[in-house]
Amino acid sequence: MSVTKPTPLSGFPELLPAERAVEQQVLDQLRATFELHGFANVETRAAEPLSQLLRKGEIDKEVYILRRLQAGEDGEDSGGDAGDPNTLGLHFDLTVPFARYVLENAGKLDFPFRRYQIQKVWRGERPQEGRYREFTQADIDVVAAGELPFHHDVEVARVMAEALSRLPLPPLRLQINNRKLIEGFYRGLGAPDVASVMRVVDKIDKVPADIVATMLVNEAGLSDDQAKQCLALAEIRSSDSSFVERVRALGVEDELLETGLQELATVISGCAGVATERFVVEADLRIARGLDYYTGTVFETRMAGFESLGSICSGGRYDSLANDGRTSYPGVGISLGVTRLLTPLFTRKKLTASRSVPSAVLVALPDEGSREQCIVIAAQLRARGIPTEVAVSAQKYGKQIRYAERRGIPYVWFPADSDSAAESGAPIGHQVKDIRSGDQLDADPQTWTPPAEDLRPQVVRSEP
Amino acid sequence: MSVTKPTPLSGFPELLPAERAVEQQVLDQLRATFELHGFANVETRAAEPLSQLLRKGEIDKEVYILRRLQAGEDGEDSGGDAGDPNTLGLHFDLTVPFARYVLENAGKLDFPFRRYQIQKVWRGERPQEGRYREFTQADIDVVAAGELPFHHDVEVARVMAEALSRLPLPPLRLQINNRKLIEGFYRGLGAPDVASVMRVVDKIDKVPADIVATMLVNEAGLSDDQAKQCLALAEIRSSDSSFVERVRALGVEDELLETGLQELATVISGCAGVATERFVVEADLRIARGLDYYTGTVFETRMAGFESLGSICSGGRYDSLANDGRTSYPGVGISLGVTRLLTPLFTRKKLTASRSVPSAVLVALPDEGSREQCIVIAAQLRARGIPTEVAVSAQKYGKQIRYAERRGIPYVWFPADSDSAAESGAPIGHQVKDIRSGDQLDADPQTWTPPAEDLRPQVVRSEP
Repeated sequence: MSVTKPTPLSGFPELLPAERAVEQQVLDQLRATFELHGFANVETRAAEPLSQLLRKGEIDKEVYILRRLQAGEDGEDSGGDAGDPNTLGLHFDLTVPFARYVLENAGKLDFPFRRYQIQKVWRGERPQEGRYREFTQADIDVVAAGELPFHHDVEVARVMAEALSRLPLPPLRLQINNRKLIEGFYRGLGAPDVASVMRVVDKIDKVPADIVATMLVNEAGLSDDQAKQCLALAEIRSSDSSFVERVRALGVEDELLETGLQELATVISGCAGVATERFVVEADLRIARGLDYYTGTVFETRMAGFESLGSICSGGRYDSLANDGRTSYPGVGISLGVTRLLTPLFTRKKLTASRSVPSAVLVALPDEGSREQCIVIAAQLRARGIPTEVAVSAQKYGKQIRYAERRGIPYVWFPADSDSAAESGAPIGHQVKDIRSGDQLDADPQTWTPPAEDLRPQVVRSEP
Repeated sequence: MSVTKPTPLSGFPELLPAERAVEQQVLDQLRATFELHGFANVETRAAEPLSQLLRKGEIDKEVYILRRLQAGEDGEDSGGDAGDPNTLGLHFDLTVPFARYVLENAGKLDFPFRRYQIQKVWRGERPQEGRYREFTQADIDVVAAGELPFHHDVEVARVMAEALSRLPLPPLRLQINNRKLIEGFYRGLGAPDVASVMRVVDKIDKVPADIVATMLVNEAGLSDDQAKQCLALAEIRSSDSSFVERVRALGVEDELLETGLQELATVISGCAGVATERFVVEADLRIARGLDYYTGTVFETRMAGFESLGSICSGGRYDSLANDGRTSYPGVGISLGVTRLLTPLFTRKKLTASRSVPSAVLVALPDEGSREQCIVIAAQLRARGIPTEVAVSAQKYGKQIRYAERRGIPYVWFPADSDSAAESGAPIGHQVKDIRSGDQLDADPQTWTPPAEDLRPQVVRSEP
């Protein structure tokens, strides 16, 4: 297979081994947290019929359609005709396939069903930083058949907050709001068209406040006073429940608003234990989430220094993930954009691993005839969970040490030299060298163990 | 999102949560073994240009082509035209993308490069048992820039043998041969066209021996005696190096044959330590592997009771994975068909998990007002790595126990009842019930720990 040097494909990021080691540890950490909370893993197939994928009109343009190169010859399936609902496309998120999976397997699943799903998704978008054509998402959702108690909103927020707070990332800010709160507020305010108020307020991050106020008057039919009230609401944020008093101080009364205030206060206090200086959880009353299927709690997450990425972890409560005519399946979930989060950190050299291979030990090879002895030593180390490789060839020890250095392998093992022992009369035993410090000590392959943190590559974060 | 009940897509198998838990443990076990031997993980993008994918003529018909639904509108990329080499297709194995990755990143990788790769691949084949349109493969390869010493053949065989022997599977048989051995034998025998002898002998599993003999005479130009010798070679198998004497007894002499015999004997003895009653490693001189890029060691693997699946784990030595004009990249590798292996075992109920959720403990809820107390208990258990969920609602304890039973959660935790303690004067402390045995004991959420095997779902194998 002779080929000319290939070049990267825009929008399809790939990682070098050390970067992938970091990504693996991030995914391991996410999985560990999700499973500690009882979330079961699910993977769905990459392809769905277009009839499923095009349900959400707004992103149909981003779908990749599949066609078998020889389709049609056996008359078996469609030739990738965009008008044929059986044509397959790659999933562009994990929610649509999960909804389909829940309906398809409803009789075999136990509800409420907690699931996490970590998979690649594909969108034919124009690539730019934070937007890729292939990327990994990590979703958690709790779905019920019939009714889903509110406390699952708190659960989902807390689980993702715990997961995020353990990752090796710049400071994060989990921003939470509640659609009932803002809808109730606009309704209580007497807005003639609540939906158009939400549409305008959603622009608040991109448009100056005075222009938003004008739009609220012109497009959403509010009075100047009402518009001012809406802007005042959107400015409220707090990392405790003090936002409740500030909303009440605006003097708007509404039953839905009251429910929303209570729900949001409950979610905020439920996450309080997770918050740290580097991980802020706060009520932020400007968060609305454009997607109109959210009906209560909504989440977004910003990463310090990477605000241009937008929200890297978003979600909320939806009253109906799926519906089979008899049963409705409400849910609450959050989706973390793993690639979106990590790729800019790799690109800017903010995150790497201490080594590019799993090996903690390189067993040096005194001569090719000692390979069998070295394989036995490596097996003894591996039996205690120590990733180990044997040197490729019996070069001078200096070269073998440089081999380890280039890869970041922290230890080089020098096997006992039975020949020179015989010659000199003094047995020379096994020795292990920490090539970072230069320390070299006698060691027994049956018992020697490095510190736990050396067992796998360490994530190295460079702060700005 | 209201939808009618969807049906499965033929060739795209999906797993229920308990089955996925088994698959996850299999993948974890593979990864652990690969990393213990110093293999670094790599993931490549799912899509490659058709110009890369169609290099191997024989499977181009199986490729899925990608097209953006709105392609052409922005004039940016091809509209999925099969004649355009820039058109993207989904990868159908992990070798082609890995070869491209090695060339693309050659300057950033350290050689010899040990990598493992566990990803989904797609083929537009007609679905049947063991053949899917979407399936997971787990590959290991060692690749060098320039020369790759032979001992890596032994290494790769041994690593995959170790990995396979630890999986919860029916008995396996790893069959190893060497292309130099059979090519040298045919050459030493005086065959006029070695390649056509190999093509005929490769049919030996499907065609009766006397017909193969006739074909060797008619199609490969052998004498009756030569044909008989070829069949005699193909019948040789042994799980030690005794095959060497049996080949020599056939009286054929050739330098390449001699090299092949030595290499094969070295691989077999290198794997001897891994063999058990349920995991046989043997030299099998009929194994040829159709693909003509193998140049030395070749591997296949059969699973007892599932012979119709063919080889579930195959590979070998190739002299050139890739070539950039200056440097050639030889390698040796094996590819395990994870989906091909597991899906038939799931379908026939040979393999499942002890529970459908990660949770080892359900914290029962005495009343809704105790939820906060139960959340604290759950957090105390999780802090020691015990997956725990809190009951959804304060039903009668009998119902909460049945909730745990349905999911296979082994323990139900009953929180200390501070109210009744106050009433009766005798404090009733925390208790934990093993719902399999019915045993119920006092327990402290700060210290209680279940046996290690209860921490995650156990793989349950039913023998035939």
